[in-house]
Amino acid sequence: MHIRAINPNTTASMTRTIAEAATRVAAPGTRITATQPDSGPVSIEGHFDEVISAVGVAEEVMASEQSDDPADAYIIACFGDPGLLAARELTRAPVIGIAEAAFHMATLVSTRFSVVTTLARTGIIAEHLLETYGFSHHCRRVRAAEIPVLDLEEDADRALSRLIEECRKARDEDNIGAIVLGCGGMADLTDEISHAIGLPVIEGVTAAVKLSEAVAGLKLGTSKYGDLAFPRPKPFTGKFEHLSHLRNQ
Amino acid sequence: MHIRAINPNTTASMTRTIAEAATRVAAPGTRITATQPDSGPVSIEGHFDEVISAVGVAEEVMASEQSDDPADAYIIACFGDPGLLAARELTRAPVIGIAEAAFHMATLVSTRFSVVTTLARTGIIAEHLLETYGFSHHCRRVRAAEIPVLDLEEDADRALSRLIEECRKARDEDNIGAIVLGCGGMADLTDEISHAIGLPVIEGVTAAVKLSEAVAGLKLGTSKYGDLAFPRPKPFTGKFEHLSHLRNQ
Amino acid sequence: MHIRAINPNTTASMTRTIAEAATRVAAPGTRITATQPDSGPVSIEGHFDEVISAVGVAEEVMASEQSDDPADAYIIACFGDPGLLAARELTRAPVIGIAEAAFHMATLVSTRFSVVTTLARTGIIAEHLLETYGFSHHCRRVRAAEIPVLDLEEDADRALSRLIEECRKARDEDNIGAIVLGCGGMADLTDEISHAIGLPVIEGVTAAVKLSEAVAGLKLGTSKYGDLAFPRPKPFTGKFEHLSHLRNQ
Amino acid sequence: MHIRAINPNTTASMTRTIAEAATRVAAPGTRITATQPDSGPVSIEGHFDEVISAVGVAEEVMASEQSDDPADAYIIACFGDPGLLAARELTRAPVIGIAEAAFHMATLVSTRFSVVTTLARTGIIAEHLLETYGFSHHCRRVRAAEIPVLDLEEDADRALSRLIEECRKARDEDNIGAIVLGCGGMADLTDEISHAIGLPVIEGVTAAVKLSEAVAGLKLGTSKYGDLAFPRPKPFTGKFEHLSHLRNQ
Amino acid sequence: MHIRAINPNTTASMTRTIAEAATRVAAPGTRITATQPDSGPVSIEGHFDEVISAVGVAEEVMASEQSDDPADAYIIACFGDPGLLAARELTRAPVIGIAEAAFHMATLVSTRFSVVTTLARTGIIAEHLLETYGFSHHCRRVRAAEIPVLDLEEDADRALSRLIEECRKARDEDNIGAIVLGCGGMADLTDEISHAIGLPVIEGVTAAVKLSEAVAGLKLGTSKYGDLAFPRPKPFTGKFEHLSHLRNQ
Amino acid sequence: MHIRAINPNTTASMTRTIAEAATRVAAPGTRITATQPDSGPVSIEGHFDEVISAVGVAEEVMASEQSDDPADAYIIACFGDPGLLAARELTRAPVIGIAEAAFHMATLVSTRFSVVTTLARTGIIAEHLLETYGFSHHCRRVRAAEIPVLDLEEDADRALSRLIEECRKARDEDNIGAIVLGCGGMADLTDEISHAIGLPVIEGVTAAVKLSEAVAGLKLGTSKYGDLAFPRPKPFTGKFEHLSHLRNQ
Repeated sequence: MHIRAINPNTTASMTRTIAEAATRVAAPGTRITATQPDSGPVSIEGHFDEVISAVGVAEEVMASEQSDDPADAYIIACFGDPGLLAARELTRAPVIGIAEAAFHMATLVSTRFSVVTTLARTGIIAEHLLETYGFSHHCRRVRAAEIPVLDLEEDADRALSRLIEECRKARDEDNIGAIVLGCGGMADLTDEISHAIGLPVIEGVTAAVKLSEAVAGLKLGTSKYGDLAFPRPKPFTGKFEHLSHLRNQ
Repeated sequence: MHIRAINPNTTASMTRTIAEAATRVAAPGTRITATQPDSGPVSIEGHFDEVISAVGVAEEVMASEQSDDPADAYIIACFGDPGLLAARELTRAPVIGIAEAAFHMATLVSTRFSVVTTLARTGIIAEHLLETYGFSHHCRRVRAAEIPVLDLEEDADRALSRLIEECRKARDEDNIGAIVLGCGGMADLTDEISHAIGLPVIEGVTAAVKLSEAVAGLKLGTSKYGDLAFPRPKPFTGKFEHLSHLRNQ
Repeated sequence: MHIRAINPNTTASMTRTIAEAATRVAAPGTRITATQPDSGPVSIEGHFDEVISAVGVAEEVMASEQSDDPADAYIIACFGDPGLLAARELTRAPVIGIAEAAFHMATLVSTRFSVVTTLARTGIIAEHLLETYGFSHHCRRVRAAEIPVLDLEEDADRALSRLIEECRKARDEDNIGAIVLGCGGMADLTDEISHAIGLPVIEGVTAAVKLSEAVAGLKLGTSKYGDLAFPRPKPFTGKFEHLSHLRNQ
Repeated sequence: MHIRAINPNTTASMTRTIAEAATRVAAPGTRITATQPDSGPVSIEGHFDEVISAVGVAEEVMASEQSDDPADAYIIACFGDPGLLAARELTRAPVIGIAEAAFHMATLVSTRFSVVTTLARTGIIAEHLLETYGFSHHCRRVRAAEIPVLDLEEDADRALSRLIEECRKARDEDNIGAIVLGCGGMADLTDEISHAIGLPVIEGVTAAVKLSEAVAGLKLGTSKYGDLAFPRPKPFTGKFEHLSHLRNQ
Repeated sequence: MHIRAINPNTTASMTRTIAEAATRVAAPGTRITATQPDSGPVSIEGHFDEVISAVGVAEEVMASEQSDDPADAYIIACFGDPGLLAARELTRAPVIGIAEAAFHMATLVSTRFSVVTTLARTGIIAEHLLETYGFSHHCRRVRAAEIPVLDLEEDADRALSRLIEECRKARDEDNIGAIVLGCGGMADLTDEISHAIGLPVIEGVTAAVKLSEAVAGLKLGTSKYGDLAFPRPKPFTGKFEHLSHLRNQ
Repeated sequence: MHIRAINPNTTASMTRTIAEAATRVAAPGTRITATQPDSGPVSIEGHFDEVISAVGVAEEVMASEQSDDPADAYIIACFGDPGLLAARELTRAPVIGIAEAAFHMATLVSTRFSVVTTLARTGIIAEHLLETYGFSHHCRRVRAAEIPVLDLEEDADRALSRLIEECRKARDEDNIGAIVLGCGGMADLTDEISHAIGLPVIEGVTAAVKLSEAVAGLKLGTSKYGDLAFPRPKPFTGKFEHLSHLRNQ
């Protein structure tokens, strides 16, 4: 199957990190492709960044659907799951957000977990998702390592040691069985952190790959019955005019 | 004060309806201006439409902030409150969504209410908002009249009678004290429906005008402490490149 | 419009504080009157005080309704919102409690807030209200400054510095965007505390004035459909005998 | 032990019904006394009635505490549990409301129950209590038989047949294991209804007697640590002046 | 009446402790018998121990039901309430778990409580029960004294002083009115701990005795309508073959 | 990898149905083995059946762990997920219940689903799991087709048509996007029902196979940190004596 990982930010190096992490866990028959929008923020660190990036996510799904090589599943590789329900409207294929993927996996291997994310200001996004998805009482605490997203690449050593430090605190103070890493840019750090901490460490990109394979393996896809049906056709204007005629199943 | 009502869809006639409704309830010292994005869907009837429209909302807030006549408060006049938290990041002024506004008002005049919205597929958006805002157990039921949004203008008589019919059912079956109208395009129907039904009928555009005046009257604005602080400055690419240098307080 | 602020305790000097705070934020066309019951506790610092004060609240609403100058809206100026639903039964006008008012406002300008109240033993009342109203998960923490209510007047300087100290802790430890002051007697301290802390500080008396204007501005009032309808007429005995014939619309 | 059942309304015949029901289930060593306030409504059918009746409840507890024959436990025999926490502040003895008592008992003999109460307008009070106490998801439905409270006495046959009819609907439609009767005035109807319906029928007065014996049998009483400690001493004015010096342990 | 306390573990000395505690609080007409399964773990300190012990609980209920001296009520004397709903299916008598009993009692004498249990790993069981029963928001914190269950007997002095230490922390840090002891093996420590701490201390075995008397005193028993009806008769195989013909009312 | 599907009941033909369904969706590298306990009920239709079956589940996990061919993941193939947390204590491998698996999958392809199970009396088990797992508000309704479990085999045609009828009602009345089949014995009916209904139909056995592959593919297993660590070693007595020495990692 073909899984298309969409990095919602526009930093190509982060797309590569995501693609490599995804590829490492892909099943033999799974082909990973990865992409990022042409248009949007270089990193996603708040509600505004997320709103802009959601457009890119939707457009990447539409582009894939109309291409010669449409994906069998999509991954939204930002921990806020931007545009998740919108993307689901656009395809019969499953669409998996990395935050939901990580939360689902964490509840399968532990009774309580903590999230370690980048910045305090993005922690609220994780909290909102936990509430919406129903996982609030499985999560003890959302912690921030206070690392800007791009520092995960640009100041990688310091970022890793900060993350390990915060994960260690989570392990020792939070009465948990597992840790969820709260950023797509941490996709390559799971092993190192898990090794340092001794707890299961769950990262969303890899989790989403396996959940995508799982859903597709059941021949399930996004329900087209109800609110995730294809969007009602209608005119769009201005820089979104190209959306007017794109959508139909 | 200057309240700027942003119609998140691109249908100018609906903007006028919104502006008129807003103006009707504005306090003597309040000036209403209204706008809609250049770019986006002509109506918002699902998650995808909402994602696209959220960009327009954010851009309209930014445009106002940089203009000679920045608003003292913003209203997001679509019942899904698209882009609400993003818009709040962009200004010190209050930003009020019409769904939240209607829910707040409904809890002040009744102990339980029902929502009557346009289409079943948008009901889920109201449900998600009720959960996120904390109003789920105040709402008995989210009902759909099965009217496409633009029919509120194009087939107005039939739409009104369908709405009254559904509101009557809500009154008689739901054990409620008030009804919330779940679409910005219903802003001019409150009186007629309320008259026909005999219950308080709450509509979000007008509710948001009064809440905007209320917040501003307390000299309160969006907190710039925490996750609603101005966005972290960063490069944006492609058709969003213009966002790279816009944001600062 | 005429807003009647009811101070549920019997301390006239606190009524004046409340009236002044209310007047400061009232819109040009709004006239504030304030009153307190003849009968009841001098301060409200627990469930028992609250029960007694609720009678005074109801009686003040009835007295106003039957006077030559009935109010267009009522404010219950104690942070426990004593007698709120009872008062709503007694009038078609809106009735707003200062706790609910403050919570509503706080959610409009921040995603998370903390409450700073007087005594630990009254904190539970705030917790119960947060649960009943649906705001529990917006509130990080209910904090007590351990100041008896009347010390807000009698030992004002020390009280203010204790409050600022506790609000500073809330700001630095609670991961919040706003602070709610949890006592009607703090109505005149908002500016000083907000100035000292740098966060939006929301106080209920002023919030309730603006919400009252907002509800009235929509021509909405308490729903008389359902459980907030006027009380069923019936005999009362003893010291409440005067209530037997008071109520009808 | 001495259990004092306080009928919060002022209808003496209902007090007798309550006393008889309580006596029927009392343990050999338990003595039941029953009383009602001198002052208050003849029945409790809404928020306003409840607020007034709560004063009577508190005063009856104080009167008992200062008498030669103070009770070892108190029962508040109205299904809204008016004044429950206030009453608890006033004594070291346990104080049990009949709504909470019935809910506790219902969860011990079934996994899901429905409530059958008198009037639709008092159903909201039951709903609020279910939420506050934590029993919401154990209760399938709150049903109203649409019988005014005093009709339970004055039109007893019709009232009973309406109740049985509504309880039968609850049994057949609600997927439940037990029914809670939602009014103190139904205390003598349990056997007849249970016989007619075939389900466990739980009534609060009798439930509260047994819970009072249970708490007292453990030598437990209301915690005087925290918010249920005796009220802080303070002046009361007007018709409540007598409360100024009553309270101390 | 005859209350049969079932110690779900197989340590006879703990059964004696339970029986003595139960007997101490039993009403004059109540006869306590106590037992433990022949088969099962010597202590219950996790999910696995609990699953095995639940079989013993069910078998003890069945044995009693078929004996010449069937009980009028059953107590499951382990704080995880193992097999509670299964046991209820097997009898018309009430069946009370000691965790639920303690939680019910704690909410009758305080507004907030903390649990002090043996090991951190069993704390999650208490958390799950609090959620299932609906008491989560009444409980501030589940604390572990880190005492293995059998140390309550084998190293009793040290265990008691550890418990008192942890209860003192709960009292001073948790803003509570009562403490729940989270292990059946603590049934004899209530007085000492309560004396040392000064708060109401609630222990489940004694609480369950009084609740059993309460339910039975109302002539209530487990509802046989719905999911707690007697098990559908069916073959069992292997070491559970004896269960094939046991069950009928 | 080797996935061991444990049918918690003792009906070998149902084990074969489960094995076949599991095999149909297994990935190329996945080997399915299936088993059922020697001892236990022939079907699971209530709390009592579930308690007994949980022992068999635990024993099957232990047997596998000590065999020459230990599984890499375990599936508990009964919709009540009996013994799930106990089984997790016994192994480092992932253990997946079919109810949780189906719920997880349903939330990935729809925003709301309904459950269609066998008997009304087992519906409560599904409700409890939805609450514990956090999926309550994703599930509109738990429906029972009123088919005894073994009729799925013994009266297969009638059972199928009843299921299709109930699923059709769910589709038409519940405002959902997907249906979850609530019994392991329905594992072979997914395609037929889905074909008849036109909605995504999710069945737990197949869902659990794919989730097992997913967790294992991430090299994750049950956390041995916290409450899912291996059981504390201790003596067991009687017919469970063999458990005394089995457990160590």
